[in-house]
Amino acid sequence: MSSVFGDRIKMTIFGESHGLAIGLVIDGLPAGLELDLASINLEMARRAPGLSELSTARKEKDAYIIESGMFSGKTTGMPLCALIPNEDQHSKDYSILKNVMRPGHADYSGWIKYKGFNDYRGGGSFSGRLTAPLVFMGAVAKQILAARGIFIGAQITSAGGVEGTAFDPLGEKAEVLLGLAKKDLPVLCAKDADAMINAIMAAKKGEDSVGGTVECMAIGVPAGLGEPYFDSVESRLAHVLFSVPAVKGVEFGKGFGFSTMLGSQANDAMYMSENTVKTKTNNNGGILGGITNGMPLLFKVGIKPTPSIALPQNTVDVSAGCNTTLEINGRHDPCIVQRAVPVIEAVTAWTILDLLLAANRS
Amino acid sequence: MSSVFGDRIKMTIFGESHGLAIGLVIDGLPAGLELDLASINLEMARRAPGLSELSTARKEKDAYIIESGMFSGKTTGMPLCALIPNEDQHSKDYSILKNVMRPGHADYSGWIKYKGFNDYRGGGSFSGRLTAPLVFMGAVAKQILAARGIFIGAQITSAGGVEGTAFDPLGEKAEVLLGLAKKDLPVLCAKDADAMINAIMAAKKGEDSVGGTVECMAIGVPAGLGEPYFDSVESRLAHVLFSVPAVKGVEFGKGFGFSTMLGSQANDAMYMSENTVKTKTNNNGGILGGITNGMPLLFKVGIKPTPSIALPQNTVDVSAGCNTTLEINGRHDPCIVQRAVPVIEAVTAWTILDLLLAANRS
Amino acid sequence: MSSVFGDRIKMTIFGESHGLAIGLVIDGLPAGLELDLASINLEMARRAPGLSELSTARKEKDAYIIESGMFSGKTTGMPLCALIPNEDQHSKDYSILKNVMRPGHADYSGWIKYKGFNDYRGGGSFSGRLTAPLVFMGAVAKQILAARGIFIGAQITSAGGVEGTAFDPLGEKAEVLLGLAKKDLPVLCAKDADAMINAIMAAKKGEDSVGGTVECMAIGVPAGLGEPYFDSVESRLAHVLFSVPAVKGVEFGKGFGFSTMLGSQANDAMYMSENTVKTKTNNNGGILGGITNGMPLLFKVGIKPTPSIALPQNTVDVSAGCNTTLEINGRHDPCIVQRAVPVIEAVTAWTILDLLLAANRS
Amino acid sequence: MSSVFGDRIKMTIFGESHGLAIGLVIDGLPAGLELDLASINLEMARRAPGLSELSTARKEKDAYIIESGMFSGKTTGMPLCALIPNEDQHSKDYSILKNVMRPGHADYSGWIKYKGFNDYRGGGSFSGRLTAPLVFMGAVAKQILAARGIFIGAQITSAGGVEGTAFDPLGEKAEVLLGLAKKDLPVLCAKDADAMINAIMAAKKGEDSVGGTVECMAIGVPAGLGEPYFDSVESRLAHVLFSVPAVKGVEFGKGFGFSTMLGSQANDAMYMSENTVKTKTNNNGGILGGITNGMPLLFKVGIKPTPSIALPQNTVDVSAGCNTTLEINGRHDPCIVQRAVPVIEAVTAWTILDLLLAANRS
Repeated sequence: MSSVFGDRIKMTIFGESHGLAIGLVIDGLPAGLELDLASINLEMARRAPGLSELSTARKEKDAYIIESGMFSGKTTGMPLCALIPNEDQHSKDYSILKNVMRPGHADYSGWIKYKGFNDYRGGGSFSGRLTAPLVFMGAVAKQILAARGIFIGAQITSAGGVEGTAFDPLGEKAEVLLGLAKKDLPVLCAKDADAMINAIMAAKKGEDSVGGTVECMAIGVPAGLGEPYFDSVESRLAHVLFSVPAVKGVEFGKGFGFSTMLGSQANDAMYMSENTVKTKTNNNGGILGGITNGMPLLFKVGIKPTPSIALPQNTVDVSAGCNTTLEINGRHDPCIVQRAVPVIEAVTAWTILDLLLAANRS
Repeated sequence: MSSVFGDRIKMTIFGESHGLAIGLVIDGLPAGLELDLASINLEMARRAPGLSELSTARKEKDAYIIESGMFSGKTTGMPLCALIPNEDQHSKDYSILKNVMRPGHADYSGWIKYKGFNDYRGGGSFSGRLTAPLVFMGAVAKQILAARGIFIGAQITSAGGVEGTAFDPLGEKAEVLLGLAKKDLPVLCAKDADAMINAIMAAKKGEDSVGGTVECMAIGVPAGLGEPYFDSVESRLAHVLFSVPAVKGVEFGKGFGFSTMLGSQANDAMYMSENTVKTKTNNNGGILGGITNGMPLLFKVGIKPTPSIALPQNTVDVSAGCNTTLEINGRHDPCIVQRAVPVIEAVTAWTILDLLLAANRS
Repeated sequence: MSSVFGDRIKMTIFGESHGLAIGLVIDGLPAGLELDLASINLEMARRAPGLSELSTARKEKDAYIIESGMFSGKTTGMPLCALIPNEDQHSKDYSILKNVMRPGHADYSGWIKYKGFNDYRGGGSFSGRLTAPLVFMGAVAKQILAARGIFIGAQITSAGGVEGTAFDPLGEKAEVLLGLAKKDLPVLCAKDADAMINAIMAAKKGEDSVGGTVECMAIGVPAGLGEPYFDSVESRLAHVLFSVPAVKGVEFGKGFGFSTMLGSQANDAMYMSENTVKTKTNNNGGILGGITNGMPLLFKVGIKPTPSIALPQNTVDVSAGCNTTLEINGRHDPCIVQRAVPVIEAVTAWTILDLLLAANRS
Repeated sequence: MSSVFGDRIKMTIFGESHGLAIGLVIDGLPAGLELDLASINLEMARRAPGLSELSTARKEKDAYIIESGMFSGKTTGMPLCALIPNEDQHSKDYSILKNVMRPGHADYSGWIKYKGFNDYRGGGSFSGRLTAPLVFMGAVAKQILAARGIFIGAQITSAGGVEGTAFDPLGEKAEVLLGLAKKDLPVLCAKDADAMINAIMAAKKGEDSVGGTVECMAIGVPAGLGEPYFDSVESRLAHVLFSVPAVKGVEFGKGFGFSTMLGSQANDAMYMSENTVKTKTNNNGGILGGITNGMPLLFKVGIKPTPSIALPQNTVDVSAGCNTTLEINGRHDPCIVQRAVPVIEAVTAWTILDLLLAANRS
């Protein structure tokens, strides 16, 4: 493990923010799959920077080259490698960061781990840029899942301290979930979105940044996915969610809210609905015993504020071994929550597909 | 994966609540390790049921037999198998549960996944009883870690709606962390513990149950552990934490609290402290970029109320395909949070040891 | 990896020859499988020692206890643990071997690797006794495969310098392959068997031992198994075959014989046979490009003579750091080839089952 | 697994013979390693086609682009991706092979497995071209091993029916092993080489091809490598060796020759040599119990004749479902044994490095 993850659908990712390219290799795709490149492009565009004043000004089209695994427009069943060349690098922006560690970033922990040899430019492999391969993987997975009636959507439920309206735990319609991708800010209610934008822009003006939360739902997921003991749905989803930079919390269904509930309130009562077992509430987020129960999959992710801010910060120079002050210039996102949304959907799609293929034991 | 997990220290677990035995196989232990069985026994006793009125009345000594991997009192370097025979089974208690699904339990999702062939008695492999092997694994890992100056402790920070006093994020002393294991209820302040016990007993009287939260800290963890991209410390810890039954939320450092903070508040300012880089706050819980930074590891877990309650509940009979009502008798825990504490410490110890061994690349 | 192997069917093995028990945990079995214990017992008996004068006099019934994963006579879909207690240990036989290394054995390499802490009695985990769990695994796999029309049989093709009659590469009948298990010595022709027995008994009289070769065939294997690049059928089979003690060579189809052939002789010409593609010869042993082609799977294994012999041998005392001479008393097999036959069938069955389940990608 | 393999040094390979590019991602390299690109280039050139009349006329420089994992001339500790663009493709040569299956090739087994969607041009991912990434991996591993005094060399011991002179099992000098790479044909004795070349050229003239054997030795390998039970040195080496196209046999030390030896002849007598334990013979090829014993690692590989020959062959057309005859034109190797030599060294170097890093458990 480490740069490779997955069971039936294994992904290997690579690349540094200011190296030649980033990319991924997907192993385990079925042969004969006609990939819809237009929809992959749309997903890539959702995550790409430079789209609005809420994001960094770095312009990356995130254009990819499929180097292998496709022939005559269809997957060959062999490993699919997609390469995403880096383009709009301003590497000089980062030269002063070789020794001065940015607070809240992986600079120091990476410097220790890699003995100073890691590529410090733009955070190297710790850069949020490495989420582009994740989005590619997710776009492919979404196509396979959609053909099986499984749809995924995520929205911002909090940004800059502004709370949004939560999904209905018993399920949103597919068009609602998919419609979020077309909004400027993926939020159920336009009024909430406006308030969030104001909060983000206020932080930007103050040379500061904001955090937030993202809620993700998958509908159409069949009951029976998840491989106890260790590959519970929660374990596998949390594993990849916590690999997304800036994610610091994950909760399923009521999550931490369970801590103040009684068992009689927490348990989801069950009933028959036209030969299907359903629950009257969905406090467990569609997962019981680590296995899907057929109700919508629902979880929430907590995201910390972008660590790169222009305000002066106290830090250290590891070369000189002394304290110093740092003002980070360059191009940064005052809020990364909106760019994290497609990434969270992507790793969710990947994980559901992987568990779906693993559940087939015959 | 699934019943096997870990990289350098691989654990395989097996067993059903009412089968002959449960157990584990540990692969990757160094040879020549003199296991302190007394301290393993103490850890097993912390998790064992029947200890107080807060727990189920099922009495299991959780005595284990080391079948392999030990010779002349020391590890041989070969797989260590520990078998834990089941003893105090009241399997008749469960016979009515073959077809009537308990809300909040894995009964229905497991029934779907295993086509009705899983052992429904006591929840089978979904039983909290399967956490006994985890505690064994953790007890072994703790011994190795303690010899390297790494100590782990966890406490209840909320139970039955009663909040406790949080750890100092900049670090508690080893004796404080280790002292928690000797308390009736592992809580920093006795006053908080009393209030929690009252809340739990009130729920018990009402034939109900409560949830809570657990906070865990590891001190002495060196900077540089964690294997990006996918084996971040958060990913690996969350993976095993979410494999613990009833865990529904995990957050590192400020976790979800980050969502309302500004970057300038969230970033942990750095400074030199006698040739060591430290941070003035520890909002990130000792992890940056998925790698430890040398500050105390700190995270919180949300635990749902015990699903087994005596109150009548609406549910389904999967054999008859109709709605029904269920009153669960038998022996249950009104609160499992206190029994989850040693389990959470255990999987944390295992994970830290595993990442420690993986970090050695020379 | 190491004591865990397999993809869809993962096996964890454990145990030392003179410890309490040896055993295995199987992960990935489908739920609802009715295991035929009688046929498992037959397979275990084939490998068990003490059956004839060709084998060691150590008597082990290899009786197993299924500790988990079975309920009401069927698999639960959860990990199946089978424990095989050690019984007829004469551990005193081995005490002089703590420091005096037996030539041809793992004594020295194991002593180095495990720093002298490995269990030297009977070779510890290096003992051929560890193949009993492999046979259990294979017996389970054979049942699943037989239900799909896949049958496996192996025979001795050489022992003590006596050559036997090879299988017809285009396929033996199922009854021929399965009938080998009922013979005293698994050899196609009785005349060959008699000559082999004479050679083995002659070596035994001379306090020496003999090696040999085993040929294994699987019929009914569908085309399309094997996962390039690295999980070719040859790679996966060789991996487990070389884990069987004393195996030092593996070749598929013509194997090393290919080295003196021309391409025009080596290529298997193809033809249509009632809508099925077949080959006129089967030089490739049913595998092309690492993937089965529908022809019988055929390979040969080279096995070295039992290293334990009573003749005096030159060796070293690692404690004293000096040369010495060793005469190994105790109970030994003058030939282990016949006991290796069911083990080779077993790991083949396991591997075919694993690849069969992995090939299902939908 | 499948396109990913390795434990501490994981390699992911990808690519098809006539796609845009082939390549690899290496995970687990230490940070700060100064890669000697010149020596990588030399290794790549050894395997590259078009070098002599013994090989195919396809000209591929096998130039690679390091896309990630290098910064300022040193490894960053992050995944290293090397892309090898395909250049001299004559894809039209292969168009008739879409439905007409080449005997001895993976055409039919691949067609079945990938349902006709695999890239048939040049064999797609089954092409020997995919060994270029393996050689890159090996060239990197060799540099790390050489710094630790471990050297690897392989030679042709048989080609076209001509036998060569075997290595001294007790060890060849480093300069002898490394010197083989500089020869036109990697063979110890020039006279043997000449005879082999004559045999190969005779086959070429006859529009046919020849097979052969390769012997590989590694010196300086410390005792104690290999991870029983399943990751024995033999298991791990055989796994990757059998992933190399055309390899059909692998034997360690005396290998199949053991089958006619007595135990007293087969066992390697041990003795002390200046505080080091050595053996007087090396029949076991440096491996006992799956673990290295400090003697030179020695094994032999059997390679089948190139399946692509110009002579007419009987085969099938899978589209028409009928028999047909095929004459393969295009560019082919009359012998691939000499090109397999650097590949065999490469996967050996990778495996030794991987086991070396895995053996470090402290």
